[in-house]
Amino acid sequence: MSDRIYNFSAGPAILPEPVLKEAQQDLWNIAGSGIGILEHSHRGKVFEKVIAEAEQDCRALAGIPDGYRILFLQGGASLQFAMVPMNLLPKGGTADYLVTGVWSQKAVKEAKLFGRVHEAASSGDRNFAYIPSPGAIRYSDKPAYVHLTTNNTIYGTQWKAEPPVPQGVPLVADTSSDMFSRPIDVTRYGLIYAGAQKNLGPSGVVLVIIRDDLIEVGPKDLPIMLQYRTHAGERSLYNTPSTFGIYMIGRVFKWIRELGGLPAMAEHNADKAKILYDFLDQGDFFRGTADADSRSLMNVCFRAPTEDLEAKFVSEATKRGLDGLKGHRSAGGMRASIYNAFPKSGVSALVNFMKEFEKANRTAVTA
Amino acid sequence: MSDRIYNFSAGPAILPEPVLKEAQQDLWNIAGSGIGILEHSHRGKVFEKVIAEAEQDCRALAGIPDGYRILFLQGGASLQFAMVPMNLLPKGGTADYLVTGVWSQKAVKEAKLFGRVHEAASSGDRNFAYIPSPGAIRYSDKPAYVHLTTNNTIYGTQWKAEPPVPQGVPLVADTSSDMFSRPIDVTRYGLIYAGAQKNLGPSGVVLVIIRDDLIEVGPKDLPIMLQYRTHAGERSLYNTPSTFGIYMIGRVFKWIRELGGLPAMAEHNADKAKILYDFLDQGDFFRGTADADSRSLMNVCFRAPTEDLEAKFVSEATKRGLDGLKGHRSAGGMRASIYNAFPKSGVSALVNFMKEFEKANRTAVTA
Repeated sequence: MSDRIYNFSAGPAILPEPVLKEAQQDLWNIAGSGIGILEHSHRGKVFEKVIAEAEQDCRALAGIPDGYRILFLQGGASLQFAMVPMNLLPKGGTADYLVTGVWSQKAVKEAKLFGRVHEAASSGDRNFAYIPSPGAIRYSDKPAYVHLTTNNTIYGTQWKAEPPVPQGVPLVADTSSDMFSRPIDVTRYGLIYAGAQKNLGPSGVVLVIIRDDLIEVGPKDLPIMLQYRTHAGERSLYNTPSTFGIYMIGRVFKWIRELGGLPAMAEHNADKAKILYDFLDQGDFFRGTADADSRSLMNVCFRAPTEDLEAKFVSEATKRGLDGLKGHRSAGGMRASIYNAFPKSGVSALVNFMKEFEKANRTAVTA
Repeated sequence: MSDRIYNFSAGPAILPEPVLKEAQQDLWNIAGSGIGILEHSHRGKVFEKVIAEAEQDCRALAGIPDGYRILFLQGGASLQFAMVPMNLLPKGGTADYLVTGVWSQKAVKEAKLFGRVHEAASSGDRNFAYIPSPGAIRYSDKPAYVHLTTNNTIYGTQWKAEPPVPQGVPLVADTSSDMFSRPIDVTRYGLIYAGAQKNLGPSGVVLVIIRDDLIEVGPKDLPIMLQYRTHAGERSLYNTPSTFGIYMIGRVFKWIRELGGLPAMAEHNADKAKILYDFLDQGDFFRGTADADSRSLMNVCFRAPTEDLEAKFVSEATKRGLDGLKGHRSAGGMRASIYNAFPKSGVSALVNFMKEFEKANRTAVTA
C-alpha cells in the first residue's frame, strides 16, 4: 500500500488494488495453465472462461435480461460515436442528441457524417455547467434514436435519471465515465457504450450493451468490423479482442459484486462525493463549478480564487501524493475524479489539504 | 520458470519472460510514480515517456527514417483491412492484392466495399501452400497500391522478400505475424500494419507505420477515428489508446534491442525453424504442408499420417506441456508457432516428442 499514492486521474484511472494483485500473478500464469493471461489464445479454454464469466458477471450486476447482448469492442467511445449512427441512423432519418459537453459534441459531429442530427437540448449556453431539465428538451418528429452522455467528466455534471424519450424511440447512452458506479436499468436503453478506462478496467476496451432488435438494423455494406451484427454473432471474438482488457473488466466486475454490487457502489460513491461537495458548499475560497442539482458523483470540478493559486494548489497537492487534480485543459481549475475504485480515505486527504491550503493562502487573496 | 509450459499458440502468443516480470511490477507502481501503468493518464508525463520511447525504439530497431510516422491504433489488422482502402483507394481507382490466404481474402473483401480490387496473384489453387513467384504476378494498369500479407499463419507460408511493384506504387503490407522477426526495409513500403499479438505484445493494439505522403490522401468525411491524419496529427493520442498495449510493445522493443536487434532475432528464428523443418524433411511420418521455398519461420504447419493420429498427437503433446499445437480449423493438422519470444529449447522438446510419438505410432500406420 505505502508505495502507492492517491490518483485522481480522470482516466485511465485508479483500479481496485485486489484486482491489480491478481493480475500481477495471472500475467505470469493464469489458473495453473502454465501460460500468462496475455499469452492465451482468444479461442482457447482459459480465455473462453474469462470472457464467459465477464459477461455473466456483467449481467448479474445490472440484472441485464436475455434480450440484450454484451460486447467487448475496441476503439473506445470515440469509435462508438461513429458506429452508432452508421448502424442505427437510416438514410434520410434524424437522430436526436442531448448535448452536455465536448463528448456529446464529438458524438454529434460523427453522426452528421451519416444523416441529420437534431440537438434536442444543450447546456452549452453556460459552458455545460448543468444538465438540461426534462422540460427543456424538444425532440424532433420521429428520431431514429436519442443519444445522451450520462456523465460529463470535463464539467463535472451527471444525469440523475434517464430523460423521458418519445414512445418506442431507443435511448443510446455514452456511459463511459459513470458505468456501474450506480444501479442502471438497462431496459430503459436501446444501446449503452462505455470506454472501460474510468470505472471498469484499462483503456483499449469498450463495453457495449445492445438490445437484440438493434443488432441487425445496420447496412450490410459497412466494414465488417463496424457492424454490430459481426460482434454479436461472434460473441466479441470475430477477430482478436483486447484479451487483457476483457480479463481486467471481468475481474473488476467480480470485485464490485463482492463489495455488494451496484447499490453498494452507489452508496460508496455518494459518500465520497458528499465529503467534497459539503466542503465546497461551506466556504467561499474554493467553489464548485457545476450547478448543485447537476453535480457528478464521479468528477468533482472546482476553482480557487485565481489561476495562480490553482496552479500552486495542483503543484503542492501533487507533492503530497494527491495526483491528477488539474482540470481538463478546456475547463481549467481543478478536478477530482473519484471513480468506483477511489478510496474514501483519499477524499478525506484531499479535503484536509484543501483546508490547509486555504488557510495558508487566504491572506494572499484578501490582501 | 518451472511453472510455465511451452506455448505454441498462433496468437495471442508467448511473450518474453523478462518483459512479463517487469510488467508485473509496473502494474502496481511504474517508475516510482506510486501509480500503476494501467492507471496513468495517457496525457501524463509517465505515459508520455512510455509512448515516446516505444516510438524511438521502433525507429531504432528498423532504421525507420523521418518520412514515416509510427502509430499505435486499435481494432487489429481486421480494422486496417477497411482503413487502408477507405484512406488510400480513391473513387474509381483500383487496388491490387496478392492473395496468399484467408487474411488476404478478408482484406480483399473490405477493399471491395470502397472500390475496385484486382487480384494480381493468388496461391488459392493449391490451398495457399506457396507464395506466388514474382513472374506470376500480373498488376493492373495503375493500381492505387499493392497489398500483401507477409506471413500466413494458417498455411505456414511467408514472403522471403518484397515482390517487385510498379514504379511509384505504394506497397501496403499486413505484417501481423512476422513483424520484427527479421530486418525490414521500411522504405520499400508505403504503409505497414501489424496486430501486436504475435511478435510485439498483447492483443488490442496494432502498429501502423505510414509514409508521410499517404497520411493526408484519405477523404475528410470519414469518421474521425478512421482517418490516418487524425492519429498522425495527435501522435496516437487523439483518444485514449490502449496504454498497456503500447507499454508492452515498448518493452518488447527494448528486449529485442538488448538481444541484438532484428538481425539477431532473424538468426534466432531461423535456427529454431531449421530444427523443425530439418526433422520434417528427414522422415515420412510427419510432413510439412508448405512448399519448401515458401516456408514460414514463424508458423510451422505439418500433418501426421491420419487425422486420428493428429488428434492423438495434439492431446499427448498438451499433456507434456507442449501447448497450442492444433492447426487452424480451416487447415487441420498441426501448427507450431515459434515467434520471437519462443525459446529454442521448446522447439527441441517438440522434436523429441515427435520422434517418440512416431516410434510409438508407426506400427499403427504400417499395420
